[in-house]
Amino acid sequence: MSPTSVLFASLRRGGRRFSPLLCFHHPRFLSTQLDYPLTHPIYSIWAANTSLGKTLVSAGLSISFLSSAPDRKFVYFKPVQTGFPQDSDSRFVYKKFSEFASLHRPERSVLASNHVLRASASASEELLNRECGSGIVSLGWHEENLVGNAGGLEASELVCKTLYAWREALSPHLVAEKEGARVRDVELLEMLESCLGNGSETWVQKGGRNVDMMCVVETAGGVASPGPSGSLQCDLYRPFRLPAILVGDGKLGGISATISAYETLKLRGYDVVAIVFEDHGLLNEAPLLSYLRDRVPVLVLPPVPQEMSNNLMEWFYQSQDIFNYLQEIMCLASRERLERFHYMTKKAREIFWWPFTQHKLVSEERVTMIDSRCGENFAVHKVKNADSIVQQFDACASWWTQGPDASLQIELARDMGYATSRYGHVMFPENVYEPALECAEILLEGVGKGWASRAYFSDNGSTAIEIALKMALRKFLFDHKVLLENSNGNGADRYIDLKVLALRGSYHGDTLGAMEAQAPSPYTGFYQQPWYTGRGHFLDPPKVSLCRNVWTICLPKNIQPDNANVEDLSFWSRDDIFDKKRDVSSLADVYSSYISQELTENLDPRGFMSIGALIIEPVIQGAGGMEMIDPLFQRILTKECQSRKIPVIFDEVFTGFWRLGRESAAELLSCQPDIACYAKLMTGGVIPLAVTLASEAVFEAFFGDSKLKALLHGHSYSAHALGCTAAVKSMKWFKDCKSNSNLTCDGRLLKELWDENLVQQISLLPAVGRVVVLGTLCAMELQAEGSNAGYASLYAANLIQKLRGDGIYMRPLGNVIYVMCGPCTSPQVCSNILEKIYTRLKDLSEAKIEPLAQTNLV
Amino acid sequence: MSPTSVLFASLRRGGRRFSPLLCFHHPRFLSTQLDYPLTHPIYSIWAANTSLGKTLVSAGLSISFLSSAPDRKFVYFKPVQTGFPQDSDSRFVYKKFSEFASLHRPERSVLASNHVLRASASASEELLNRECGSGIVSLGWHEENLVGNAGGLEASELVCKTLYAWREALSPHLVAEKEGARVRDVELLEMLESCLGNGSETWVQKGGRNVDMMCVVETAGGVASPGPSGSLQCDLYRPFRLPAILVGDGKLGGISATISAYETLKLRGYDVVAIVFEDHGLLNEAPLLSYLRDRVPVLVLPPVPQEMSNNLMEWFYQSQDIFNYLQEIMCLASRERLERFHYMTKKAREIFWWPFTQHKLVSEERVTMIDSRCGENFAVHKVKNADSIVQQFDACASWWTQGPDASLQIELARDMGYATSRYGHVMFPENVYEPALECAEILLEGVGKGWASRAYFSDNGSTAIEIALKMALRKFLFDHKVLLENSNGNGADRYIDLKVLALRGSYHGDTLGAMEAQAPSPYTGFYQQPWYTGRGHFLDPPKVSLCRNVWTICLPKNIQPDNANVEDLSFWSRDDIFDKKRDVSSLADVYSSYISQELTENLDPRGFMSIGALIIEPVIQGAGGMEMIDPLFQRILTKECQSRKIPVIFDEVFTGFWRLGRESAAELLSCQPDIACYAKLMTGGVIPLAVTLASEAVFEAFFGDSKLKALLHGHSYSAHALGCTAAVKSMKWFKDCKSNSNLTCDGRLLKELWDENLVQQISLLPAVGRVVVLGTLCAMELQAEGSNAGYASLYAANLIQKLRGDGIYMRPLGNVIYVMCGPCTSPQVCSNILEKIYTRLKDLSEAKIEPLAQTNLV
Repeated sequence: MSPTSVLFASLRRGGRRFSPLLCFHHPRFLSTQLDYPLTHPIYSIWAANTSLGKTLVSAGLSISFLSSAPDRKFVYFKPVQTGFPQDSDSRFVYKKFSEFASLHRPERSVLASNHVLRASASASEELLNRECGSGIVSLGWHEENLVGNAGGLEASELVCKTLYAWREALSPHLVAEKEGARVRDVELLEMLESCLGNGSETWVQKGGRNVDMMCVVETAGGVASPGPSGSLQCDLYRPFRLPAILVGDGKLGGISATISAYETLKLRGYDVVAIVFEDHGLLNEAPLLSYLRDRVPVLVLPPVPQEMSNNLMEWFYQSQDIFNYLQEIMCLASRERLERFHYMTKKAREIFWWPFTQHKLVSEERVTMIDSRCGENFAVHKVKNADSIVQQFDACASWWTQGPDASLQIELARDMGYATSRYGHVMFPENVYEPALECAEILLEGVGKGWASRAYFSDNGSTAIEIALKMALRKFLFDHKVLLENSNGNGADRYIDLKVLALRGSYHGDTLGAMEAQAPSPYTGFYQQPWYTGRGHFLDPPKVSLCRNVWTICLPKNIQPDNANVEDLSFWSRDDIFDKKRDVSSLADVYSSYISQELTENLDPRGFMSIGALIIEPVIQGAGGMEMIDPLFQRILTKECQSRKIPVIFDEVFTGFWRLGRESAAELLSCQPDIACYAKLMTGGVIPLAVTLASEAVFEAFFGDSKLKALLHGHSYSAHALGCTAAVKSMKWFKDCKSNSNLTCDGRLLKELWDENLVQQISLLPAVGRVVVLGTLCAMELQAEGSNAGYASLYAANLIQKLRGDGIYMRPLGNVIYVMCGPCTSPQVCSNILEKIYTRLKDLSEAKIEPLAQTNLV
Repeated sequence: MSPTSVLFASLRRGGRRFSPLLCFHHPRFLSTQLDYPLTHPIYSIWAANTSLGKTLVSAGLSISFLSSAPDRKFVYFKPVQTGFPQDSDSRFVYKKFSEFASLHRPERSVLASNHVLRASASASEELLNRECGSGIVSLGWHEENLVGNAGGLEASELVCKTLYAWREALSPHLVAEKEGARVRDVELLEMLESCLGNGSETWVQKGGRNVDMMCVVETAGGVASPGPSGSLQCDLYRPFRLPAILVGDGKLGGISATISAYETLKLRGYDVVAIVFEDHGLLNEAPLLSYLRDRVPVLVLPPVPQEMSNNLMEWFYQSQDIFNYLQEIMCLASRERLERFHYMTKKAREIFWWPFTQHKLVSEERVTMIDSRCGENFAVHKVKNADSIVQQFDACASWWTQGPDASLQIELARDMGYATSRYGHVMFPENVYEPALECAEILLEGVGKGWASRAYFSDNGSTAIEIALKMALRKFLFDHKVLLENSNGNGADRYIDLKVLALRGSYHGDTLGAMEAQAPSPYTGFYQQPWYTGRGHFLDPPKVSLCRNVWTICLPKNIQPDNANVEDLSFWSRDDIFDKKRDVSSLADVYSSYISQELTENLDPRGFMSIGALIIEPVIQGAGGMEMIDPLFQRILTKECQSRKIPVIFDEVFTGFWRLGRESAAELLSCQPDIACYAKLMTGGVIPLAVTLASEAVFEAFFGDSKLKALLHGHSYSAHALGCTAAVKSMKWFKDCKSNSNLTCDGRLLKELWDENLVQQISLLPAVGRVVVLGTLCAMELQAEGSNAGYASLYAANLIQKLRGDGIYMRPLGNVIYVMCGPCTSPQVCSNILEKIYTRLKDLSEAKIEPLAQTNLV
């Protein structure tokens, strides 16, 4: 429908086809790490529509803040100004403040200034009355005056700044285009950040005394009005997530407009601290307070005199109480927020029981207070010289779940709201509803294409594996005629002792069934789970990694060919390892006979196969230390099992959905399972949902007349609407070239995200044992011996702390560190991150960073 | 802050304290079952603000629809009209259509009419020019005319209706108050429903020919403008969830206003099919299309002549193409929606693998297509005489997860959007973020109060149980000194064979660990999970139920006291069963000695206790058939175990959060566990989240120097922000008297939701074996014998089908049926439901409904 709709829209414009040229994508990653102070209130001022009086509110706040005590600084920013210089909100604030202060507060002396940093050439010409070239001009223009009678040293300060200005009084995205003076989102954000930053401009000590400060950033137009690049302003400024003041609408229709604007801000994760609007006698505050359930203060300003040429001094005077109150609310909320941050860090250690965490090893300083996420980045609270908000790249992808860039995150937010409101959760069995069906359709057309025909939903990887095991074992019993038709198999009788075939080092989840399918490890010890027995036959797999710039296969001691060609084990390119040509090679024969032998050994005394399923993590074993398994070995393993009617389960919980550069890792292996499990990235990383896909042949082993033959496993929120909705959006987003610019032209592959040269150099560092780089993953094992290696090792701890300081939030797997991006993360961002890692690993190699030895820590 | 803010808002009104009197709650359950046809397009028309031309769009659509073919009917509804009769949108549509048709389409004959159904007395007086009393007056006023020249039979029809009108041109909530003519939401919705309904008015056959029909419902003001009761219109009309046309804003600031309005509609679960707005030359469509990623058509109407006294005929003529296109989009979308509904029902059976479902028993007719949920009700697609949307009460509470009423659902929707945008999901271990901390705080102050000090988050009940078991068994090993300090317990060595003590008939989840803790049952058979062994010592518990109007304890054969007073086993009131006085009774002694003996028998040959934990569902065993266990027995069991340092786990996954009328079932038992699990209702029923709470003593068994001593269990989305946000909102909502009117005055108890008299009568019916009624639950076991009883029984199938026809969506547990409401559901709604159930059970008792015998079904 869309091309037609554009056409129709344009039809009314005399047939001119209007194509939206503007970039409505979210600002890309900033080159610097976003960082701004929490030492004083910084607010964003938004409005439900244009002309509702944002600037009056800013001016009122400046008057109130600077009047209430000496030694204060009020900073006003107008990042985007159009209609300049006739319209200049920073000048308005500067002027009105000066006028009011001279009139009513002559006893306080305030140095007031107004600055214009940059403007389009045509706006600059208008201001300076001379030729200014083209594009955006750095003006550095300013005016100032000293208000009041007191001495200079005692003076408070008002600083007003316009960051960017354009000539015409139109929407910024139109004038930026028209005046040939575009500004990218990143530029604007970096400019604003430097203004908010820790510099002398905004955080000052004057003559040894602390200066109380307040800062406001006034947006342009309504909350969702486009900025200069076309990005909606509510999206544009989102990385800062400044607390918000919303200027509402007191007119007829204003209740609706104010509520809608409020919801638009909430949908971007903003906290609205107060709503304020001009009284038009319609009592709009009552429905607003009711809607807000009294949780957000609503303030009403006196009517602004119709005759705007009036100098407004009377109005500001009348409004003093309201502005004082608003200002107090803002200061209080800001203080409370900071106090809460400190409290939270303490309290977390007292009441959380973190998974996989030895609490004794977590000091208060090690606790990270995460204020928010924007795309791939956390905003965390840091106390360095002072409290601040600092951006960190989520390099652990929050336990490998993350995929969204900032644009997808916003779309998911809207979709989550919609799905909650449309469905909440509704009963799944025997029912159908849109998101569940669409999700199943996309799964079967995507990762399940060519083999799967049924989708079984559950909540996480571990439950998906439990379901897969039940499916596989039943299918095995069915195929091998162990299943008695119409049996009412009640209770605990065991007919045969079924095992799974699995690889050592694999991990499938923490519920008992999933644990039983993995080899003994620190996770499975008696003190962790006394019921664990290890119901598997576990093989040591051959592994692959980039060692000293050569891709190398490392064979386990059980597979040591007498006469294998040594060239089989080294590769110059990673692609060669996946090459199907390797199926015909001496190594393939070695693998094949080894596997046959292992299977033969697992016949029970009656000659009956006791291996009821194969379960593997295809290509990469994640929790086992980001080990890459020789794909040839896994391919042969799959085939050997399938030829013996042993069902094959692929655990793609970690590897699925582009994690390894392909929609599924099965594609990399070039073979198909009978059953596969997906979770994590499936929902784009916002909400737990898992699915077990199965072939129709597997499904048929449960089909019959009795309910008791059905698969009696299920969780309350099976196929919950929110999860399915998020999955539908994310799966589509990742594989659509329009939303994911990392896809190669055929849409089946992610382009290389990690700079090849950097990866090579890292692999050559003495401190680095091996590198595995594939898709969104780049993992590095640190050279370590004995107890410094392995899961419980803290060897990487110091390195990790340094990297967090660099703005990279990593979590190690013992002595293995890794960085993981989303399928849409720009390669530039990846390189940026990888360079920092390289530098730190070089320091480690040169012993500038000490690894944390294990001597005192068990 | 809130009282102050109201004060400040009122300060500007000369000190008059303004208290919001209006009801901003969602409409309550309709007395009739909502039901409207899908046979023709029905749309709602919304606008981003007032005066953007909704009525022009409605009029344009009427012209386009009726002009394009003969034998058509266009119905226009204006449910809420203010400023009447000077302003009458239905009259405007009627007039403009008539004028345009006479001028441009004289060859088509159309019978046009305009109706005013009800109006405030003062509006009625103005219209009729006579005294009309007070309040709302039923007018039944209408006007009509035959447009065009063709014969009567061929005539198409235009029907315009104003449902409610008020005199003054103010917001409806103000005039309704001012004119003393209030209308409750329910009245308005019922009126609208009867207008949309299947009656001759809206779905007609004329002289044997099908009449194509289209219907629009035009709202008043902006999307979130209050209706007459004060409810926001977007909330008010939500139960219908009609597809929407949004009239946007083409002016400066209009991009933002349109996007915000769109988001407000999406946040209520509406589907916006098209956006249309008047051109003001600002190219607003480009950013809109970009924001919508071309998925919603955006249409631009020519500028409306400034001089509104102009009769607009020229404008309608110019706009024809756009209206034709809009109308086609609407018809197409409506058709596609219906086709999709039919397709979905088919497709679901082909690609879903439903949990706990024997697919062979699910015919296409049994599949329910759920279009949406609003509070406690589903809107489902039904094909009776024709396709329609019908409301059903979700009596199974979607596997016992549901709690929200319609207001909470909307709040959760906004919160889910906010949480996604603010956090998505962020890494939990070693970190802290607001919703996770607040959720833990509320849990520990609520269900965990007095005993729990740590919160361990996971995804569902089953994983919460696996975690609880790991905690309990470790604690047991620790207390009984089986745990060797600093052991690197690697691998599968088993030191002792630990069991749990559990009750037969209990159910704790479907992952293997949780399964091991339950007694053999249909769920645990070899063909379901060959690895199940049943690691428990299972006791038969004494049960309680209302049988023939007497609360009766039924003792298992192992507990048959020789000399127990028979009065101990019958109670006239349910409260007596929970009375702590029973602790001193002969039955208490019997229980106590029985339990002691069972525990003594479970010493291993070395005299070592092999029971490492007690796990029970307190008070009600859910999946086991809604069996109520004698609370005295469970209390004594808990004490006996705790006195032997056997950790006690309460599985409150089903019973927690007011399900049984108290915040926790532990409160009902009057004793405290060491570990407890919660899930389902915790998030209000929108999203999976579970928590295992533990005492500090349990936590300490994992505290030490080595990571290997920590609890190495975790799921990717541990403590995910969306789940915690939903839980925070829901837990607060349920226990706040302001939002939950079912709470008794001390806030610790839900008032009785099920009519006592009706419950008694049900218990006396011959078809009913027993009744259990407690909190939000009312369960009834049907008298059945042999294979007609138990989990696999289909005995209730026919009854269930009848009840679904009555608008009650039930799922039986074999021969046990139940209805479950939310903690906030009004007792009136419960009675309404229960009456219908009583009637059907009476029919069953009188053999008017046949139970489904098991002979042909195994």
